[in-house]
This record gives sequence, structure tokens and C-alpha cells, in this order.
Amino acid sequence: MSGLKEFQSVESILKKNLLGEEYEKIRQILYGRPVVNLEIPSIPKNFDIQAYSIPCPEEQLRKPRLVRVGLFQHQIPLPAPSKVQDMKEAMFKMAREALDAAAAMNVNVFCFQEAWNMPFAFCTREKYPWCEYAESAQNGPTTTFLQKIAEQHNMVIISPILERDEINSDTLWNAAVVIDNHGDYLGKHRKNHIPRVGDFNESTYYFEGNTGHPVFQTEFGKVAINICYGRHHPLNWLAFELNGAEIVFNPSATVGDLSEPLWGIECRNAAIANGYFTCAINRVGTEVFENEFTSGNGKPAHKDFGHFYGSSYVAAPNGSRTPGLSRINNGLLVVEIDLNMCRQVKDHWGFQMTQRLDMYADLLSKVLAPDFKPQIIKK
Amino acid sequence: MSGLKEFQSVESILKKNLLGEEYEKIRQILYGRPVVNLEIPSIPKNFDIQAYSIPCPEEQLRKPRLVRVGLFQHQIPLPAPSKVQDMKEAMFKMAREALDAAAAMNVNVFCFQEAWNMPFAFCTREKYPWCEYAESAQNGPTTTFLQKIAEQHNMVIISPILERDEINSDTLWNAAVVIDNHGDYLGKHRKNHIPRVGDFNESTYYFEGNTGHPVFQTEFGKVAINICYGRHHPLNWLAFELNGAEIVFNPSATVGDLSEPLWGIECRNAAIANGYFTCAINRVGTEVFENEFTSGNGKPAHKDFGHFYGSSYVAAPNGSRTPGLSRINNGLLVVEIDLNMCRQVKDHWGFQMTQRLDMYADLLSKVLAPDFKPQIIKK
Repeated sequence: MSGLKEFQSVESILKKNLLGEEYEKIRQILYGRPVVNLEIPSIPKNFDIQAYSIPCPEEQLRKPRLVRVGLFQHQIPLPAPSKVQDMKEAMFKMAREALDAAAAMNVNVFCFQEAWNMPFAFCTREKYPWCEYAESAQNGPTTTFLQKIAEQHNMVIISPILERDEINSDTLWNAAVVIDNHGDYLGKHRKNHIPRVGDFNESTYYFEGNTGHPVFQTEFGKVAINICYGRHHPLNWLAFELNGAEIVFNPSATVGDLSEPLWGIECRNAAIANGYFTCAINRVGTEVFENEFTSGNGKPAHKDFGHFYGSSYVAAPNGSRTPGLSRINNGLLVVEIDLNMCRQVKDHWGFQMTQRLDMYADLLSKVLAPDFKPQIIKK
Repeated sequence: MSGLKEFQSVESILKKNLLGEEYEKIRQILYGRPVVNLEIPSIPKNFDIQAYSIPCPEEQLRKPRLVRVGLFQHQIPLPAPSKVQDMKEAMFKMAREALDAAAAMNVNVFCFQEAWNMPFAFCTREKYPWCEYAESAQNGPTTTFLQKIAEQHNMVIISPILERDEINSDTLWNAAVVIDNHGDYLGKHRKNHIPRVGDFNESTYYFEGNTGHPVFQTEFGKVAINICYGRHHPLNWLAFELNGAEIVFNPSATVGDLSEPLWGIECRNAAIANGYFTCAINRVGTEVFENEFTSGNGKPAHKDFGHFYGSSYVAAPNGSRTPGLSRINNGLLVVEIDLNMCRQVKDHWGFQMTQRLDMYADLLSKVLAPDFKPQIIKK
């Protein structure tokens, strides 16, 4: 935020300055239908907790399908240049606290931020030691660590990590691992769209994902993961809907005054357009590296990526959204949702019925042809 | 707005209650990079005028391609049950004033709201007299009227009307007519996605459009029109981008507390995802009909569609947006944009380069197959 000190959140400023009916008018337009505060137990913790329920009408034939999602945003617990093993252990300790708090609040599906168990070091373009953070999705120490907790807490855990594919030439991937509530490895999804902008030098480390758009059938609904930069791609969101997703998590790591105005727009638009819940999770804090690097923006070399602005939130298919977590603190956001809302909203608005996929399948196939001629009308 | 009196705008409440740095923090996150106020000449008028410029960096090889767009939102000038010819004449008088004001502000491309020259009568499901408002796109009185003004003012005019296709069995369409700045008929686009929700009984009157996704090459840039409900469809927005659009107008008519929280999201998301400018124009006011009708929502029969909340705005490819026009008054929004920003933002973020269209063309073709099996992972 150029020229502005970091501050807690948009919501905190609105709440402080607006009263009564004026606050409610603004809130209704900016956030949609009201969410309900959930009680937060007094548990020891080193992070903020916010908890909401998103109301949903009852049906006659289907019982409510209530699911509690838990979104955890956090800073790195040690300075970025710390030893890899020390950092991993500190991450595990912090994760354990967050998962225990989530369990105390009956969270069913928990998701970490992107590449959660390491500094977001891709800005450095250095391979050492950052590639050492990569782990096997199915058998790595992070997955093994989380499997025990998932079973203990009867909780699905989504763990976005830097993946090392030891079977396929030791390649690296940006992947999200899904562990079910019995502690079993359910599968993984690899990030489909890789940025090449500013300090997001991820294409230096890993390639576009090759796992398609899997939807994971869990005991708490059909979940999918759209990792970070994939939120800018409406087709990526659409593909998860076509495969049946009811909740799509967007574990992210993003900074900057160009990105932040987009943060409240894209995941929420995806929820509206696709009739599912979206869970936007952003890293928080500033990570300072040992060696300087440049950002491709004409500015002098420096040692940090900028401020990850947190602000994690959940958006519902009806366009409502929760307040965001803090822009500066670690935080856990617990939101109770009713998956029945997905079909209710599809029935109401009819976006899927009216979307004319055949027309677009035809167009996309034509666009790819070498002799494609855009439909341009001129005199 | 259930339980809340109608009010001017979100922006008016924010400006009234927030000061200095706190206002600027909120503004930056909610609206993106600052827009610049343009001078508004003192001209006689019966509507609000707001005017902004959206800053854009200069390039070395291309000169700025500055274009002024004009968005006009308005109530019907006579009560809805007025005689058709009287209403049309009152509409022409009002339009003339708006177009003259736009010309005084050097507008290059002007766009009206959806079905601008008639009450939004599709809520009634009555065919008479509303079908009488339909006109030939190329030779109807509204097009003829606007052609003279377009030539006089050297202005492209986009005129969304109820179209009568006399050559093809007298069918009706929801169409936007494009008249170039020499007063010539350039072509038309027919609304691709037709709603079936609440009072939006448009499918009673006309069918899904059959004109594809034309982009109109004008002297002031490549423009396209995504009519109303099409803004809920990311593929519709994408198709205009694939055909080269630089500005996409979204002439609309929308009401209600479920719709309004979406209003600031969808057109802005489309600008971000597709690297073009979007111009969201909504009707304003409440239209009361002679006969009562029901809304498919369990509530008693009534005679109005609800409050069209105006709030027209322009969104830029970098995610910035202008303030909205009033929620209750007629208004003209003039915005100066530099079309060079489209390619600049595409180069910066790289969303188009990274969008992997081949993967989605393949998926969409598979989804349509009768034996489509979603990509679901379960134990």
C-alpha cells in the first residue's frame, strides 16, 4: 500500500465510522445478505479467530448439509533465512495450534494458504535452499504429519505445498494435497495457471499443472482447489463447477496495490457465476530474504516480496460474503455453510441452464485454429 | 432494498462519513487506483452528470488512444401505461438532451440502458401493447432518429432496443444497434443469455440471440455489447475478448437485494479477466403498470417491478473503477479512457498468455458428450 500504513481491514474502518442504517445500507451492497456470528470458545491461541454462519433456507426433501470450513492465514513463524528443518518444525507447531483450534470449533474441512509450510521464496529466483522444501505429496513429512491430525479431529485437511515428484524425474509442482477425515491421502491437484509477473517468478520453479480439474468427494461435500493465480481465470473456476464442486478453496499468496482491489472481486464472482462456495485464503505479513533481488519494475534491488495482505474470506453462491480476516495478523476464519445453497441458487438464477456451453465449445475450438478470424464488424 | 429507504449511493455515504487517510485506504481497496475528476460544463440538464478520467501510462511507440464513453441511465419519462407513441416521443426528447450534453463533453461512444426506449414491461407477461414497442434494428424510427444525432455529434451511439425482425417471421429479439459516428448503421448484437427468474420474464417475448459475439470496429476502438443477464456468464465476456473487444458495454435493467451486491462485482471481474474496459449501465426508478402481476416468489400480485437501482459505472482492465451514478436519479457518466491500457494490462498480468484455451476447448467438448463423466476423486 504505497504511502499508507498497514491497517487491520476494510471492515474495521467501516464499522468504526458508520452507524445504524447507513452502515447496514453499505454492508448490504458491499457484502450481500447478512451473515450470523458464531460463538467462539475461549481457547489458547496466537491468532485472531472470526466465525460466521451463512444462512440458507430449509428444503422439504433434503436435510441441511451443514459444513464448517476453516481457513488459516499466517506469517512464517521464523525469519525466512532460517534453516529448512527449523522452519518446518516451527510451521508444524503453528499448524498444530490452528488445527486444534479449528477442531474445537467443529471445523470439517480445513485449508492452509498456498505453499503454507515454507517462505514464499519464488521471488528470489534462487533454487537453493528453497527447492529443499519440496516434498512428496503422498508420502512427505507434511502429509504424514497432517494425516494423524486429520484422523484425530475427523477433519478433511487441504495442504498446499511445493511438491517433489520423485517418480517423475524429481520434478517440482505447486500442488494441494487432500487428506480425508480418516487420515487417508485422497489425492492432489496441481496448480493449472502459473504467473509471470513482478515477484511471482514461479515459472522458474514449476510448470503448469497436469492434473486437470479434480473434485474430491469427501464426507463433507465435493471440494476442489483453485490455487492462487488460477483465480484470475474464469475457465479454471468453470471447470471445477462442471466437475461438480460445491466448495472451491483458493489458497493464495498475494501482495500489492494492483492485486488488492481484485482480491474481493474474483473469488466472489466465481461463487456467483458457478453456484458454489469459494474460500479465499491469503498469506499475511512481510518475508525478508537474505540476498537482494529485483522485481522487474525498474526499482532498486531489495530483500522482501512486499506485504501479504491476508483478508481471507468466504463467498456464497448467492453473492454474500463474510468479512475478511485481518490484513496484518495470523487468523482462523470458521464459516458454517449449507451446501444445499448451491443447487438452490442454480435453480433461482438459472445461470447454468442458460449458459449455452455448446456455443462456447464451438468458439473455443475455432479460436485455436491457425486460420481463426475474429468476428469483427466494420464498414 | 428490504426495510431500507432508497439512498443516493454507496460512494455518497462513504464520502460523508470517512475522512482523509481512512477514506483513501477504503477507496483504494474498494475502487482501485484513483480516477481524476473531469470538468463538467454548465449546461442545461435534467439529470446528474459525473465525469472522470482513468489515468494510463504513456508508451513510446503508440500514442494515447483516448476515448470518452458516455453512459446514460434514466427513468421512463411518462407513466408506464402511457400511449406507445407518446412514450416514444418523450423518450426521444429525453435522449436528445442526454446526447447533446454528452456531445458538449466530447463523448465519442454513447450507450443507453437495455430496452431504453420503452418501459421494462416484460414483468407483466402481457404482449399488448408492449410488443408494439419493437422496431426494425436497421430501419426503425429509433435508429433513424439516432442516426441524425450520431452524424451531427460525430458520436458512435449504441441503442439497445426490442427488435422486430420483419424479414424473419416478425420475430422479436433483445438487441443492441450500433450506429457509427457518421450516422451509418454498423450492425446489431442480439442478447445471448435470457433470464428466467423473478420478474425477468423475458423468455416469454424473445429467444436467445443468434448473432454470436460481434465486435464492432469503430473510429473510437473495438466495442462490443453484453446485454444485461449476459454479465452473469463469464464465457460470454470471454468470447468478446477473443474477438478483440477493447470496450464492452453492459446495458442492463436490474432490481432487487439479491442482484445489487452482484452489480459491482461482475462487470468489474470481466474487465479484469479479459483486459478490456467494461461499462455497466442500469435503468433507474420504479415503473408502475396498469394491471397487477405476480413474481413467482409467493408474494401477492402487485403492479411494479421494484426499484431499478441505477449505479452505472466504468471498470478498467487494471481493476480500477469509477464511482457509480446515483441509485435514484437520471444520470450521465462520462469517462475518458485510454485504450492502450488493455494491452498494457495483458502484458503485465499475463492472464491471456497463461489461460490454456486448448485445455478448456477439450473439456467443453467432453462435457457436452452424453457419456460425460466428471473428474471426481473418491476413496
